[in-house]
Amino acid sequence: MAQKPSIPKGTRDFSPIEVTKRNYIFDIIKKAFQSFGFQPIETPSFEKSETLLGKYGEEGDRLIFKILNSGEKVRKADLKALEDGNLARFSNSLSEKALRYDLTVPFARYVVQHQNDITFPFKRYQIQPVWRADRPQHGRFQEFFQCDADVVGSTSLWQEVEFVQLYDKVFSELGLEGVTIKINNRKILSGIAEVIGAKDKLIDFTVALDKLDKIGEQGVKDEMLNKGISAEAIEKVQPLFGFSGNLEEKLNQLKGLLSTSKQGMEGISELEFVFEAIQTLGLETATLDLDITLARGLNYYTGAIFEVSAPEGVKMGSIGGGGRYDDLTGIFGLKDVSGVGISFGLDRIYLVLEELGLFPETVSDKVDVLCINFGEKEALASLKLIKTLREAGKSAELYPDNAKMKKQMNYANKREIPFVILIGEDELENNTCIVKNMIDGTQKEVPFDEVLTAF
Amino acid sequence: MAQKPSIPKGTRDFSPIEVTKRNYIFDIIKKAFQSFGFQPIETPSFEKSETLLGKYGEEGDRLIFKILNSGEKVRKADLKALEDGNLARFSNSLSEKALRYDLTVPFARYVVQHQNDITFPFKRYQIQPVWRADRPQHGRFQEFFQCDADVVGSTSLWQEVEFVQLYDKVFSELGLEGVTIKINNRKILSGIAEVIGAKDKLIDFTVALDKLDKIGEQGVKDEMLNKGISAEAIEKVQPLFGFSGNLEEKLNQLKGLLSTSKQGMEGISELEFVFEAIQTLGLETATLDLDITLARGLNYYTGAIFEVSAPEGVKMGSIGGGGRYDDLTGIFGLKDVSGVGISFGLDRIYLVLEELGLFPETVSDKVDVLCINFGEKEALASLKLIKTLREAGKSAELYPDNAKMKKQMNYANKREIPFVILIGEDELENNTCIVKNMIDGTQKEVPFDEVLTAF
Repeated sequence: MAQKPSIPKGTRDFSPIEVTKRNYIFDIIKKAFQSFGFQPIETPSFEKSETLLGKYGEEGDRLIFKILNSGEKVRKADLKALEDGNLARFSNSLSEKALRYDLTVPFARYVVQHQNDITFPFKRYQIQPVWRADRPQHGRFQEFFQCDADVVGSTSLWQEVEFVQLYDKVFSELGLEGVTIKINNRKILSGIAEVIGAKDKLIDFTVALDKLDKIGEQGVKDEMLNKGISAEAIEKVQPLFGFSGNLEEKLNQLKGLLSTSKQGMEGISELEFVFEAIQTLGLETATLDLDITLARGLNYYTGAIFEVSAPEGVKMGSIGGGGRYDDLTGIFGLKDVSGVGISFGLDRIYLVLEELGLFPETVSDKVDVLCINFGEKEALASLKLIKTLREAGKSAELYPDNAKMKKQMNYANKREIPFVILIGEDELENNTCIVKNMIDGTQKEVPFDEVLTAF
Repeated sequence: MAQKPSIPKGTRDFSPIEVTKRNYIFDIIKKAFQSFGFQPIETPSFEKSETLLGKYGEEGDRLIFKILNSGEKVRKADLKALEDGNLARFSNSLSEKALRYDLTVPFARYVVQHQNDITFPFKRYQIQPVWRADRPQHGRFQEFFQCDADVVGSTSLWQEVEFVQLYDKVFSELGLEGVTIKINNRKILSGIAEVIGAKDKLIDFTVALDKLDKIGEQGVKDEMLNKGISAEAIEKVQPLFGFSGNLEEKLNQLKGLLSTSKQGMEGISELEFVFEAIQTLGLETATLDLDITLARGLNYYTGAIFEVSAPEGVKMGSIGGGGRYDDLTGIFGLKDVSGVGISFGLDRIYLVLEELGLFPETVSDKVDVLCINFGEKEALASLKLIKTLREAGKSAELYPDNAKMKKQMNYANKREIPFVILIGEDELENNTCIVKNMIDGTQKEVPFDEVLTAF
């Protein structure tokens, strides 16, 4: 093989420093999840096809990676389907398993399968990769991690309050100050749809309204008209074009607008509950805001809808999202289990921390100390010293070969190792070692048993 | 869907306590890897088929999970191959990617692909799942984690010394005392093959010799004869049947036996180097032993061969293994890069720790504190208290609903939560809370701002 090997498009290798930085984020998220009482579960990378197919819509089904049956089983290929051009049926005849597409459906499956062993309400978190056969493009990957926390088995709005606190906690711990936690409620959206008398146009409506800042009131109205929303309907929600002020003011405007909609008023009262609790409890660094254009997977959510945006000035889509869904486990036959959950967008959070220089210097893949190798006896003495260093919590290694000094120092420089220890013939005789600081170039000779004082 | 959903055979869901215990093991291994100067990398779950196929022998190829091409691509199915019964060719016409089968081949691919960015010698560790289409059976899974540490780019025997220390370190940290690190050398095995004049019979020979304890000298000799090893050959290695004593004595017996084999003597001298270094450096809790029947993937290893066995009395196969391979990256066109590495068997280590009761009590998925929910005002006060507890490092949660006291206490009992906090109307008025110890049943009332003193 003359050509260098490569990896499939849309996948990534992670270098040591990348893994280290990703783990730094994961660890902060995990710690926060645990501190809030969430418990970890893990599910298999592949599920039975029947578990996944039909759960994500037609487009979703197409993006699910199917695993080819092994051995003799491929004989069962449905050639008739291939002939007929029914590629989905042909593919399904060759496959019984598929890679998970998200963590939500496997979680629902887990809850139903293990319902007798679970104490409800069940607070679980899950951090695992998912796979999607998306066309690879900038910033979109076929394999990526999801970090989800969900509670099932309670309709209490305290959960929504806790999730706002949880977002605040994680982003504060990451040093990412100034994120906005946007919240909306499906019932408010339903109320708006009622008022404009066009339930099927709701997504067109919110998409257009979301552009208010960019294209102005007239631009938005033109787009709405173009999408077939009537002028009368637009007239009725005129207050939304001047929608502003603090949370209380916004809620008051909404109350006027949705006074005739029972569902709409319910949504407002749910939001008020969350806002008031958060006002009393306070947030560390995040801001909570109402965004009535927030719709994220409208058909999925039934109550609160969350989305987190990066601090102002950072160009990045949402770095987290979630919401309440009233019938998560119904698809697997367990009715009336309400759930609410949030998710962290690891890849984007990574990019934002990188852009803002927020990874602490201590997040490093560097080894603390390298011992230069001057030959067999000296190397053995070095390994003794290394043992002491490791026991004291330092990472340390011996250059494996008795190579030229220059080559060994080069290695230390390239790997940016901050301290180098030299034990040559003389030092060995005197039971000392030379500790060289590679950053400022200074060095000192210390007795073996005082090596820890040299750092 | 009336039937409960399930997962594919050979895969596993991991419950909160299982994930917690697995992470405990992972964390100790990771910390040791880092302390020894190893750097983490991660590679994609699936590789191009050409990267994996042909690297694990015919049997291995059959066990690789292939990913079915998406969308239109399945039209390229090689129906002629299916007709001819060439199922491998048919399958390959439907698939361009495959799930990784181990971490070694992806690592070799990584090294070759990124050779210009890597400083050699490169010490990497990798902890990720792998997939094998093995027939599911007790203790054998289609998805499982591998934990590997390897060094490439140096032939130095100090690496072998470090890997023995690393095994000792990890198992000592896990509290698993008394493991045996068995070591052998491919060159010694070659020497034996030379002496018995039957290179092709080497595996039969070692397999038979390994049974000495069970079936006795005559039994082993009978099996060897049955396998076509000549009586003269067996006569020549007679000393191996009385092979015993400490390491030094064993090595001396081998020296007599292999004195005519240059390779054999080289292997002995390599082992001597490792033994002497370890003798000087000492091991915490493990024992290093020479096992000349150790052969693990004979064709793969070229120098040292390692295997770790659980403490005596625990029935379990090897809980770790590894060795040196002289041409790891040659398969991808980068010649002369020697590597040596070891692996930890997570699933078996888990079972051994469980059997011996070695998971510390602190390894728990329990939340520390539950606040009982007595209504809106009380819940809000509880959440303030919970904030204080979380900041102090405790995990804490509010029961989400204002349910009957009995139901809430039941939840606390089922989840084995050690402390419950009650803030009722009276407590709220007095700015106090009741902290109840769920283990001994005692309880005390403390002011809000002194809650931390109650634990």
